[in-house]
Amino acid sequence: MNFSSKILEEAVHQVSQLPGIGKRTALRLVLHLMRQPEQQTDALSKALTDMRHDLKFCKKCHNVSDTDFCEICASHNRDHTLVCVVEDVRDVMAIENTSQYRGLYHVLGGKISPMDGIGPQDLKVSSLVNRVKNDEVKEIIFALSPTIEGDTTNFYIFKQLGDLPVSTSTIARGIAVGDELEFADEVTLGRSILQRIPYETSVKS
Amino acid sequence: MNFSSKILEEAVHQVSQLPGIGKRTALRLVLHLMRQPEQQTDALSKALTDMRHDLKFCKKCHNVSDTDFCEICASHNRDHTLVCVVEDVRDVMAIENTSQYRGLYHVLGGKISPMDGIGPQDLKVSSLVNRVKNDEVKEIIFALSPTIEGDTTNFYIFKQLGDLPVSTSTIARGIAVGDELEFADEVTLGRSILQRIPYETSVKS
Repeated sequence: MNFSSKILEEAVHQVSQLPGIGKRTALRLVLHLMRQPEQQTDALSKALTDMRHDLKFCKKCHNVSDTDFCEICASHNRDHTLVCVVEDVRDVMAIENTSQYRGLYHVLGGKISPMDGIGPQDLKVSSLVNRVKNDEVKEIIFALSPTIEGDTTNFYIFKQLGDLPVSTSTIARGIAVGDELEFADEVTLGRSILQRIPYETSVKS
Repeated sequence: MNFSSKILEEAVHQVSQLPGIGKRTALRLVLHLMRQPEQQTDALSKALTDMRHDLKFCKKCHNVSDTDFCEICASHNRDHTLVCVVEDVRDVMAIENTSQYRGLYHVLGGKISPMDGIGPQDLKVSSLVNRVKNDEVKEIIFALSPTIEGDTTNFYIFKQLGDLPVSTSTIARGIAVGDELEFADEVTLGRSILQRIPYETSVKS
């Protein structure tokens, strides 16, 4: 692209470093900012810098937090014996949005994926084992995506927990609410029959 | 969304103010920045702030520029008697990328669109008329999008130019190079027959 302005070119270059944003989109975004009041760009820049420098990760569960320990880990209203293992900060938000879970979390920061060069040492597995050893954790709920990588990660953690006195479970996998049975894939449908639950249980929740 | 962090929430809020970026995409982008070195976010913030405060618009053609007059208007290698009227800074880049045009530009900053509340007074029309009056402009080329708004804007400017000694033209409209004839819309196809050009001319360019 022919920018005729180094300042504009640099801005477009920086914005296009973000994932999924190409040069054209970046140009559209920065030209939009040029049409808005200066305060908007200043607020955006400040929010990003503040976030990158001040946002912390909870020392216990590795969730994003403004303080050393996140709101969830610090809360007395949550069940500290229950830990839900998730891949990402966004999964914590997704589960929190359901308002169905009152335990704590543990954010791994990814899942084991040799193809992407992510091994167990890149994930927060040892700190999870330490939580089980030192805290009052009684149950670990695996809530990773039901993919090969997710299942591998679950199994790795399960092995690492060894003989520690903690029970483990995974979130239920089956036909999503509102889905048509005929369009479900065979593995899911097959599992949902093998792992069927008592009708009374399904009606309760 | 349930953020559990005011700093993160503010960053996501600011990023989601950009056009075409919703809360989910904004969250994905800022969490990406959190995984990158701090320098990347700092460079992004600085580039945006610098751009918003230091980027100028050329005093002659209203193109983006680092100086009072843009590179194109300041160049002695361009034909200063030819002015191409475009809607947006991006159109200047698009035409420059063709390397086919050696004249100057005039960026209107939009097109007349009553539906969007954009009237002639919101566009840089009077400064174009002044350029024709005071500079050495001999031909104006309308290069707005061939839409109702574009045509209206062309006609408005044409009327404003009145009896001034300047010739006007519009970019050719017709079947795009590589397009299949059967899929062309009727208006374009009809016009392309009425406004046919000598075969020798079409072969030359």
